[in-house]
Amino acid sequence: MRTLKELKERVRRFIDDVAIPLESLDIERDVDALDDIARTLRRQAREAGIYGPQLPREYGGLALPWLACAELFEESARSLLGPIALNCAPPDQPNALLLDLLASPAQRAQFLEPIARSEKRACFAMTEPAPGAGSDPSMLQTTARRKHGKWVLNGHKKFISGGIKADIAIVPARTEEGVTLFVFETATPGYRVVRDIPMVTGYQIGGHAEILLEDCELADDAVLGVVGKGLAHIQLRLEPARLSHCMRFIGRARRAMDIAQGYVNERVSFGARLAEQQQVQAMVADSHIDLHASRLLTLHCAALMDEGKSVKHHSSMAKVFVSEAVGRVADRAMQMCGALGISEDAAISAIWREMRPFRIYDGANEVHRSALARRILDRNISP
Amino acid sequence: MRTLKELKERVRRFIDDVAIPLESLDIERDVDALDDIARTLRRQAREAGIYGPQLPREYGGLALPWLACAELFEESARSLLGPIALNCAPPDQPNALLLDLLASPAQRAQFLEPIARSEKRACFAMTEPAPGAGSDPSMLQTTARRKHGKWVLNGHKKFISGGIKADIAIVPARTEEGVTLFVFETATPGYRVVRDIPMVTGYQIGGHAEILLEDCELADDAVLGVVGKGLAHIQLRLEPARLSHCMRFIGRARRAMDIAQGYVNERVSFGARLAEQQQVQAMVADSHIDLHASRLLTLHCAALMDEGKSVKHHSSMAKVFVSEAVGRVADRAMQMCGALGISEDAAISAIWREMRPFRIYDGANEVHRSALARRILDRNISP
Amino acid sequence: MRTLKELKERVRRFIDDVAIPLESLDIERDVDALDDIARTLRRQAREAGIYGPQLPREYGGLALPWLACAELFEESARSLLGPIALNCAPPDQPNALLLDLLASPAQRAQFLEPIARSEKRACFAMTEPAPGAGSDPSMLQTTARRKHGKWVLNGHKKFISGGIKADIAIVPARTEEGVTLFVFETATPGYRVVRDIPMVTGYQIGGHAEILLEDCELADDAVLGVVGKGLAHIQLRLEPARLSHCMRFIGRARRAMDIAQGYVNERVSFGARLAEQQQVQAMVADSHIDLHASRLLTLHCAALMDEGKSVKHHSSMAKVFVSEAVGRVADRAMQMCGALGISEDAAISAIWREMRPFRIYDGANEVHRSALARRILDRNISP
Amino acid sequence: MRTLKELKERVRRFIDDVAIPLESLDIERDVDALDDIARTLRRQAREAGIYGPQLPREYGGLALPWLACAELFEESARSLLGPIALNCAPPDQPNALLLDLLASPAQRAQFLEPIARSEKRACFAMTEPAPGAGSDPSMLQTTARRKHGKWVLNGHKKFISGGIKADIAIVPARTEEGVTLFVFETATPGYRVVRDIPMVTGYQIGGHAEILLEDCELADDAVLGVVGKGLAHIQLRLEPARLSHCMRFIGRARRAMDIAQGYVNERVSFGARLAEQQQVQAMVADSHIDLHASRLLTLHCAALMDEGKSVKHHSSMAKVFVSEAVGRVADRAMQMCGALGISEDAAISAIWREMRPFRIYDGANEVHRSALARRILDRNISP
Repeated sequence: MRTLKELKERVRRFIDDVAIPLESLDIERDVDALDDIARTLRRQAREAGIYGPQLPREYGGLALPWLACAELFEESARSLLGPIALNCAPPDQPNALLLDLLASPAQRAQFLEPIARSEKRACFAMTEPAPGAGSDPSMLQTTARRKHGKWVLNGHKKFISGGIKADIAIVPARTEEGVTLFVFETATPGYRVVRDIPMVTGYQIGGHAEILLEDCELADDAVLGVVGKGLAHIQLRLEPARLSHCMRFIGRARRAMDIAQGYVNERVSFGARLAEQQQVQAMVADSHIDLHASRLLTLHCAALMDEGKSVKHHSSMAKVFVSEAVGRVADRAMQMCGALGISEDAAISAIWREMRPFRIYDGANEVHRSALARRILDRNISP
Repeated sequence: MRTLKELKERVRRFIDDVAIPLESLDIERDVDALDDIARTLRRQAREAGIYGPQLPREYGGLALPWLACAELFEESARSLLGPIALNCAPPDQPNALLLDLLASPAQRAQFLEPIARSEKRACFAMTEPAPGAGSDPSMLQTTARRKHGKWVLNGHKKFISGGIKADIAIVPARTEEGVTLFVFETATPGYRVVRDIPMVTGYQIGGHAEILLEDCELADDAVLGVVGKGLAHIQLRLEPARLSHCMRFIGRARRAMDIAQGYVNERVSFGARLAEQQQVQAMVADSHIDLHASRLLTLHCAALMDEGKSVKHHSSMAKVFVSEAVGRVADRAMQMCGALGISEDAAISAIWREMRPFRIYDGANEVHRSALARRILDRNISP
Repeated sequence: MRTLKELKERVRRFIDDVAIPLESLDIERDVDALDDIARTLRRQAREAGIYGPQLPREYGGLALPWLACAELFEESARSLLGPIALNCAPPDQPNALLLDLLASPAQRAQFLEPIARSEKRACFAMTEPAPGAGSDPSMLQTTARRKHGKWVLNGHKKFISGGIKADIAIVPARTEEGVTLFVFETATPGYRVVRDIPMVTGYQIGGHAEILLEDCELADDAVLGVVGKGLAHIQLRLEPARLSHCMRFIGRARRAMDIAQGYVNERVSFGARLAEQQQVQAMVADSHIDLHASRLLTLHCAALMDEGKSVKHHSSMAKVFVSEAVGRVADRAMQMCGALGISEDAAISAIWREMRPFRIYDGANEVHRSALARRILDRNISP
Repeated sequence: MRTLKELKERVRRFIDDVAIPLESLDIERDVDALDDIARTLRRQAREAGIYGPQLPREYGGLALPWLACAELFEESARSLLGPIALNCAPPDQPNALLLDLLASPAQRAQFLEPIARSEKRACFAMTEPAPGAGSDPSMLQTTARRKHGKWVLNGHKKFISGGIKADIAIVPARTEEGVTLFVFETATPGYRVVRDIPMVTGYQIGGHAEILLEDCELADDAVLGVVGKGLAHIQLRLEPARLSHCMRFIGRARRAMDIAQGYVNERVSFGARLAEQQQVQAMVADSHIDLHASRLLTLHCAALMDEGKSVKHHSSMAKVFVSEAVGRVADRAMQMCGALGISEDAAISAIWREMRPFRIYDGANEVHRSALARRILDRNISP
C-alpha cells in the first residue's frame, strides 16, 4: 500500500495537471457539463490510484482513516473540480458515509455501491422553505403517513445540493414515531424536481434543487435506519460532513492564496513589489496563521473521530473557526490581486464565492455559537 | 421646481415600481439587454422628472448640488438598475462631470451632450494589465507619440467599465509633456475591444472591456484639457467619482438590509422569530450604525464639494470607511437570510458581490490608508 | 461674547499649558488630591473664561448649545484633568443637567447652584450589586417607603462615580407609585459610604463608591421631579450623558494618537522610521477615520438636541460606535508606541484604561444593540 | 515518577488553594512584597512536588519536556502568582534556559544554580530607549570595549523585566566581533538601577527597571557563549520564551473566562440570566474557540521543540495568534462582567491589563507579520 505521502503527492500532481486545467466559468453552473467532467475525472482518478479516499475498499475506495482523508481532501480541493474527481465531494461523500452506517444489505447493494462506484448520484433532502427545517431540524414539515401498508410522503424541499438529476434521494420526514429517514430512487412517482436554484456558488454536482414530494409512496424497505430515530441518524451524517467541509475548504482557500502570493511577488505598485509592502505582508501572514490554525482544529477532530470519540463539541468549534477563517483568507487573496481578483479570469473570485456559504451550511455559525455556549455554561466547562 | 423631498419620493416610487421588478439574473452580465433596458428606463425616468440629478440642465438633467445628489443617488441605487435608469451610474456619471469641467465647446457638443442625453456611452480607459497603471496612475504604459501632426496612441487597457459597445473613449496616455487625456469616438481606427471580461459583479452598462490601442491616430482636438496635465485632470474625476460611489453603495446595501429585515421578522428558528434572537439583533444594529456613519461621512464631503472645497483627504477617509461598511452590511444581510441569502432568488447575493470591488475600485483601500497616513504624519494632523 | 473658535483656542491652550502638566500616576486614584487639583484648576478655568461650557449663565457657566459644548468638551478632554477643570466631567455635568430640568426653586438653590459653582459635588446613585439595577434600570431594588409622613430609603449601591466625599446624592428608589428620584445631602442619617472601589480607570472625581442606605429618612421636598416618574426622568439624564461621554472620549483618544504620531515620526526600527511602515500607517489612517466618524455621529446628535429633538435612537448608535472606536484608537496608539505605550511614562496607558469602560457605562453596548434592533425591526425602519 | 495528569491536578489545587487567595491589588506593583510572597510560595510548591517544571533535575526541578511544561505552565498561570510560585515566570524561566544552553561550568555554578534554586534572580537587559534596541535587536547601542584586558560596558537599558533587586544581569552589548552576551552580578561597579518604571501591568517579580551601564568592567569569564555570536544566542532564548508566554497567557485568559462564566450563569438582566442571552453566548463560544485554537498552535510548537526541530516560523505564527486571542478573551470576560469586570474587585481587570503587552513583547506582532510574510513570499511557501 502506498504511503500517505505518496498518495498526497499523486493527488497534488493530479490536481495541478488534470483538474485545474478543466475549470471554467462556462461550466460552473452547468449540471450536465459537471456530470460529464465528473465521469472523465473519476476514471482518471481511479487510474491514478487516488479515487475515493474515504470510500469502502470493496467498492473501489481507499478506506483511509480520517487523518489521512483530511490531508487528501484538502489537497484535492485546491481545484474546484478536485473533490468531484475523487468522489469525495458533498453531498455524496457524507451520503455514502450515512449509508455505510445505516443501510441494510439490500440498501447497500442498491444505493451505497452505485454511489461509491460513481454509477449513481444521491441527494440528502433536508432543507425546506419557511416555515420548515433550516438550521433547526426540529422544524421539519415533510410528513410520511402510513396508508395501506405504505409510507406516503408529502413535502417541499429547497436548496437540495446535488438534487438535479440525482438517481437516489435520502429524505427525512415526520412520522408518528418521530423523524424517520427514507432512501429511494428519485424515479419514484410523486417525487418531482421543480427547478435548479441559482446560487452565488458553482461547481456543485447536481446543483441545488427545489423538490416536491406529492403522495410519494414508499415501501417499508425504504426506511433507512430505525423508524423515529431520524434526528439521531442525521447527526451521524452532520458531524463528519462538517469536518469534511473544513478539510476541503482549507485546500480551496490555500489555492486562492497560492495565486495571490504569485501575483504580489510580481506586481509592482508605487515603486515596490506588492510583496514588499507591509499591508500586503500582513494579509499574507494572517492568511497563513488562519489556515494553520484551521488545519490544527480540523486534524484534532479527525484524530478524535479515528479514535471513535465524539466530536460534537469540537467539530462545532472547528466549523465556526474554519468557515470564518477561509472566508477571510479568500477575501484577502482577492484584495491582494486587485482588479484581477474580482474578475473571473483568476479562480479567486469563484473560490471567494464558494467560501461564503460555509458560514451558513451545516448549521449557521450563530446556531453553533449558541449551542456551544449553552453546553459550556450548563456544564461549566473551563475553556 | 420640486423640493428635494418630493424628488426623493418620486425616485423611491420609481425604484420600487419600475426598476426593481426588471432585475434578473439573466440580464446581469448581458450588455445588450442592459442597453435595451437602459433606453426604456431612462425614457420613463425622464417622464417621471427624475432623470440626471447631476447632469446639466441644458441637456435634460436636474443640475442638483452634491448634497441633493447624495440623497437621490442613494435612493436610486436601491435597485441594481436604478442608477442606470437615472443615468447617474458609472462610468458616465463621472465621465460627464469630467467633460463638463474640461471639454472645449466642440467637445461638449460632440461628447458631453450625447452622453448627458443618453444617446451615446463613454468609457474611461485608465487601468492597464501589469506592469501598467492600476491603483498607481504613475505607472501608465500607454503612449501617445507625435507623428505627422497627429497623436499616435499605443497601449493595452483592461477592466474598462462600460467599454463594451461604448461610443466614446477617454484615454490617458503618456506624452513627452506628461500624461495627457484624449477623448474620441471608439470607431477610430486602431481602437479595438478585445473582449468583455467576466467579473464577480454584474449590472454594468457596457461590461468591463479589455481594449487594445494599436497606432490609433488622433488629431489635436482629441486632447481633453491641457497636454501634460492628465494626472491632475484625473483627480478632478476621481474624487467626485469616489464620493458618488459611496452614495450609491449606501443605497444598495440598504436594500440588502431591507430584504433581510423583512426575512428575520417572519422566519422562525429554534422556537423564536429570528428578529427576537440577539445575534441577529446585533447584526441589524451594527448594519444601521455602519450605514448611518457612512451616510454622515459622505454627506460631510458632499457639503464640502458644494462649498467648492477640496475633499482629497476626507473623500479618502469616506471611501475606506464606506467601502468596508457596505461590505459588512451586505455580508450580514446574507447571513441573516441563510440559504435564501446565498441563492440568487433574492437580490442579496448580487448586492453582496457588487459591494466587494469597492474596496479595490478608485484606489485600493491599502493605497488610501498609506496616502492618508503619510499626509497626516508629514503635517502632524491631529485626528 | 467670544466666538466658539476663540473659546476653543483658549481651551486648547489651557489644556496644554495648565491641565496636562498636572497629570500624574500618583494622583489618578487619590480622591483628595483630585479634589484639591479641581479647586485650583476650576479657579484658573474661570479666570480663563472657559469654565462650565454647559452650565447656566446665572451660576457662572457659559450656557452654550450642544454643538458648541461638543467642541469644547472634546478639546478639554485631551487632558485626563480637563473636564474636571471645566466642571464638565461626569457625574456632575449630567447631574446639573438633570437638576436644571427637574429641580424645584428650593432644590435649585440648595443643590444645583453649589454644584454649578463647584462648591459641592453630587453623585447619582443608580447601580446596585446583583440582583439589582445594572444596565437594566427596571431591576432597581432600593426602596422608599412612606412612614410617618417621611420617605424611608433602604438599599445598596455600587460603582457610584463621584460618591466618595460627595455632598449631595441623587437616588432612584422604588416606591408604590413607581420609581422615584430623591435628592438630598449625604450628611443625612442612614446614608453611608462603605468604601472606594478600585477600578481599572482613574481620574474620577469622587472615585467609585459603594453606598448603603439604611432607614434613611427624607422629607417630601427631597423628591426630585414627580413621584413615580423616575424611570422617565432618568432618561432625561441618560441621553445627554451618553452624548457628553462621546464628546469627551473623542478628545481623550485624540490625545493618545497625538502622542503616538509624535512617537512614530521619530522612532526608527528595521531601517526606517515607524511612520514610513505601512502597518503603522494603516493604524494611523484607521484611527483618523474612526475619530472622524465618531465626531460626525456625535455632532449629528448634538444638532438634534439643539433642535429639541429626541436622540433616543441616534444617541444609542453614537454610543455604540464611539465607545468601540475610541477603544480601537487607544489600542492602536498603544501598539504604535511599543514598550513606552504600555508603561505609565506616557499618558497612553491611562487613556487606554479610561476608554474601556465606555462600552459598559450608560448601558452596555449589547443592551443598546438589542434595543436598537428591536425598535428597527418592530417599526421596520430602513437603515 | 508522577504522571502528567497527577502533576496537573496538583498544580490545579495549588493554584486554587494557595496562589489565588494571595492575589491583591496592594501587592501587584510592590517588588518587595512579591519577593516575599515568592519565597513562601516556592517553598510550598517544592513541598507539593510541582516546583520548576522546566528546571534541571539537579537543581530541584522536574525537567519535563515542552509538551508537559505547556500544560503545567498554563495551569499555573491561572493565578497571577502561579508562575512565580513554580519559578516558571519570566524572566528567569527563559534566563535559566539560556544559561543551561550556554553557560560554562563555572557560570552554571555561579548563575544557573542559584536561579534554578530560587536563591537569586536575574534580568535580561536587552531593550534600550530610542534610538536603541526594541523589536529590532540590530539597533543595539550598548557597547563593550576592550580595555586593559577587561570588557568595559556602557549603555542605557529600559523596561528590563525583573531588573529591580536582581542579583544577576545578562546583557547583550556591541563588541568589535559583533553582539556579545555578558552575564555578571549586578553588584558590579558601574551597573546602576535608575528606577522601577510603572507599567500598565503588575505582578512582575523585579518590576521593570531602567538601568545604566557606566564603565562597567567585566573579566573575560563574564562572556556568555561565544564572543560576537550574541544575536544568534538571543534567538535561543527568544523562541522558547515566546512559546512559554503563550502557555502562560492561555491559562491566565482561561481564568478570566472562568470568572465570567460563573458571573453570567448567575446574573439576571432584562428578565433572563445573562447566560441565556445570545450576545453573551457568542462571547463565550468565541472565547472557547480562541483558547482551543491557541492551545493547539502552542502544543504544535511544543511538540516540534521536543523533537528538536526549529520553531522559528511556527512560533511566530503562534505568538501573533495567541497574543491577540488572549486579548480578545480577556476583553470579552470583562464585558460579560459589566461594572464588576472593570473594577479591581475581580481579577479580570488585572488579567485584561496583563494580556495587552503580549502583542508588543517578544517582537511586536507587526514585526512578526512582516518577517513571516517575507519568508513565505521569498520561498513561496503554500499556506
